[in-house]
Amino acid sequence: MTDQPRSIIAGQERDQADVTAATAAAADAFAAYRSTTPDERADFLESVAAAIEADKDAIIQAAVAESHLPEARITGEVGRTTGQLRMFAGVVRQGDHLGVRIDVAMPDREPLPRPDIRQRMIPLGPVAVFGASNFPLAFSTAGGDTASALAAGCPVIVKGHPAHPRAGYLVARAITSAVAAAGLPTGVFSFVLGDGYEIGQELVRDPRIAAVGFTGSRAGGLALVRTAAERDVPIPVYAEMSAVNPVVVLPGALGDAASLGEAYVGSLTMGAGQFCTNPGLLFLPEGDQGDAFLVAAGRAVAGSTGTQMLTSGIAEAYTKGAEQVAQVGGAEVVASGQSGEGADAPAPQIVAAPLNALDEVAVEVFGAAGVVVRYGSLDELLPHLEALEGQLTATIHAGEADAEASARLLPTLELKVGRILFNGWPTGVEVGHAMVHGGPYPSTSDSRTTSVGSLAIERFQRPVCYQDVPAAVQPEAIRDDNPWGLRRRIDGVLEA
Amino acid sequence: MTDQPRSIIAGQERDQADVTAATAAAADAFAAYRSTTPDERADFLESVAAAIEADKDAIIQAAVAESHLPEARITGEVGRTTGQLRMFAGVVRQGDHLGVRIDVAMPDREPLPRPDIRQRMIPLGPVAVFGASNFPLAFSTAGGDTASALAAGCPVIVKGHPAHPRAGYLVARAITSAVAAAGLPTGVFSFVLGDGYEIGQELVRDPRIAAVGFTGSRAGGLALVRTAAERDVPIPVYAEMSAVNPVVVLPGALGDAASLGEAYVGSLTMGAGQFCTNPGLLFLPEGDQGDAFLVAAGRAVAGSTGTQMLTSGIAEAYTKGAEQVAQVGGAEVVASGQSGEGADAPAPQIVAAPLNALDEVAVEVFGAAGVVVRYGSLDELLPHLEALEGQLTATIHAGEADAEASARLLPTLELKVGRILFNGWPTGVEVGHAMVHGGPYPSTSDSRTTSVGSLAIERFQRPVCYQDVPAAVQPEAIRDDNPWGLRRRIDGVLEA
Repeated sequence: MTDQPRSIIAGQERDQADVTAATAAAADAFAAYRSTTPDERADFLESVAAAIEADKDAIIQAAVAESHLPEARITGEVGRTTGQLRMFAGVVRQGDHLGVRIDVAMPDREPLPRPDIRQRMIPLGPVAVFGASNFPLAFSTAGGDTASALAAGCPVIVKGHPAHPRAGYLVARAITSAVAAAGLPTGVFSFVLGDGYEIGQELVRDPRIAAVGFTGSRAGGLALVRTAAERDVPIPVYAEMSAVNPVVVLPGALGDAASLGEAYVGSLTMGAGQFCTNPGLLFLPEGDQGDAFLVAAGRAVAGSTGTQMLTSGIAEAYTKGAEQVAQVGGAEVVASGQSGEGADAPAPQIVAAPLNALDEVAVEVFGAAGVVVRYGSLDELLPHLEALEGQLTATIHAGEADAEASARLLPTLELKVGRILFNGWPTGVEVGHAMVHGGPYPSTSDSRTTSVGSLAIERFQRPVCYQDVPAAVQPEAIRDDNPWGLRRRIDGVLEA
Repeated sequence: MTDQPRSIIAGQERDQADVTAATAAAADAFAAYRSTTPDERADFLESVAAAIEADKDAIIQAAVAESHLPEARITGEVGRTTGQLRMFAGVVRQGDHLGVRIDVAMPDREPLPRPDIRQRMIPLGPVAVFGASNFPLAFSTAGGDTASALAAGCPVIVKGHPAHPRAGYLVARAITSAVAAAGLPTGVFSFVLGDGYEIGQELVRDPRIAAVGFTGSRAGGLALVRTAAERDVPIPVYAEMSAVNPVVVLPGALGDAASLGEAYVGSLTMGAGQFCTNPGLLFLPEGDQGDAFLVAAGRAVAGSTGTQMLTSGIAEAYTKGAEQVAQVGGAEVVASGQSGEGADAPAPQIVAAPLNALDEVAVEVFGAAGVVVRYGSLDELLPHLEALEGQLTATIHAGEADAEASARLLPTLELKVGRILFNGWPTGVEVGHAMVHGGPYPSTSDSRTTSVGSLAIERFQRPVCYQDVPAAVQPEAIRDDNPWGLRRRIDGVLEA
């Protein structure tokens, strides 16, 4: 153990982030790791959770110090991280993600016999993971990308986030100890730490890397997408990038307009607004009740105080972005809060802007900056919603009188987003089986999946088909005696 | 009806391939088409099959004349095409592809209640399809890409293949009549016909297109991949491109070496070798039995005669490619057949090449050109197999004594391919639920899926999550009363 966070390459602590050593070890470990049984792999995921819990106090202390997030929030994140690992262990043990299909041979079929054809999913190979600044645990070293890639059977190399190197290092140490305890090859997990942009690029360019998971800025995500596309063998990049998460308030939701306005500010300013799902853009009906919402929201923002953001860079970008939005033609600041202590705790802000300025204000400002856009009618609003970029979430606030409007909005919004919510706020992403934390470009680089929830495992797999493969050499998953007790699709029909 | 094949844009025959009119109509049709019930959509797919059958004689006549393929083969392709549509109808009716997941609300959970969270798959949007030269029906206008996109709920625009415009046009007319008979918006299907490369590029650049299906050359596929990646909103491209489909003959399979050699040539020369899965590269043991295989194969090739290829361009490319392979250092021609009648029926050929020339000879020559590489031991062969590019298929010929060798080969080959076969030939791709016609780059542009078989439907979908959406506005697929009788995943467990 050392005082300083370091890289951990295939079980060895190193002063240098040796990317090539990490990817070579991952490639070597792939065959053994992907051939683990469901129980072995599930046990390993559970032991990662246990190892994190065993060093929980030090991890929480490091993450609080590095992120400036409250201890209660970080403690919750530990639970979310370990809960996610255990949920994925359950999915792996159960085995549906292996997608086994068997088309039974028909030796007597005319004019030609039908061969015996079987299908299963196999893991893609070593995965590079880039954690998020804003979730030092749940979207980072042992976060959703790592957990889902390990669940799929892929070795993982985490590029440690420079905003929380020590928390990352401690978690990496926990994973490394679980790898050793399970008797798995050390290359199953590595952690490369370094400030430079170049380490990440080197990782994604490495021919042994088969896929990438990323959570962060649009610029950072798109740079990795480009690098991955320019490789001799291009690879999938799952980059969760940015969103303004539109909220549409319908007139019937404004029965208690003041309370709703206050709740909006609660979601907007929570955690200094540092959430991918922060409600950055809200559409509010014109008229008295909408006015009352805005007055209450403005009052709440005016009474709010900024808290220290994750990094100085993020605080500077927030301040600059919030100023730019306020200067858009037609926009005006409804209210600003107070700056908090220190240089990196800028004030929350709400800006009102007209519909015709939407293109300019519908831009993510990472932090507690909201834009409120008033609308007269759904007919006026709908074309503007159709013109929005892809988003992680959309929220509808509706009362009983809004059923028809809700039914019109839903099909429009579902083409824009990965998750639709009613009468709630998008911050707070439940880890479950039905969650989608994803959405059309540019909210992510690949809308066909999610980075939260058990469906995330399937991102790191591909199908392989086995035709007339002798029983003696069939992989366990597709064998007739079904040693893993999988539910298989036989001739197109899923077993009961 | 006209004598000349024309474009059909949203139900209207046109002399011009108006891409923008087709994509605009597809975008308009998307909302109505994706909201069809499983039964409605399945009925439509079945009616497309029936409409093709109703015009079967004319379609077969056109396809035979344009492709120079035998009538029996084309007749078989009609059956494959209609069978595929009906199989996909069955999958749509059954509904598992909708992937419905429900995480039940827990209003009393501490510290926070859990919301009601539901997930389903929705179609991506209008899909552009580029058919293959070598399957004028089953991989073309109403082929696997079109059928799977329509099954997913995506409108389709087919770029008609210039090698079989009339067959394409007649099939497009059948689809168009089925769209009209079903009362669907005409934009659900369009067919744009034109020689130029530019029409295809325009289609893929069009912002209304959400995904691309392609079967053809590597150069053609990669051009579309690049165009799709350069869009403001990049889209997925499923390009099935090229392969040499390695065959490994193990010593124990050479009990009747001469018969196996003849069977190899049968697969190699079938249909003038114009299959994506043609066995272009065969690894043969050194020694007497291997010699006997090669003598028999050489004799079979020497006695074979070329048949007219699909187009003059394909025949020219074959001749040039076959010459290039024969000229690789260390390679020698084992045998050549006779050229057939006319300019476009070049002779089949087998070349023998040493292992150390593998990089130069493991290149697809589309047609009946095979490369045989001798090897001494599995230890010698394995590193060369590991260094191969991604492939559609790999085949192992093994006898009873080869169990250990097979078990060593299988995990190596499954990382290289989409389908592994034993003791057969890769030509002949069964349309079923367990088939994978796909594989790692560059055999396809996206290894995570298949272009044949029912799993292909899932390529054209993405997940959307519904959080606390009121029952009154929930889409049918996720409603508690389950009007479509779907098998859902409730809290992670699939219903029985």
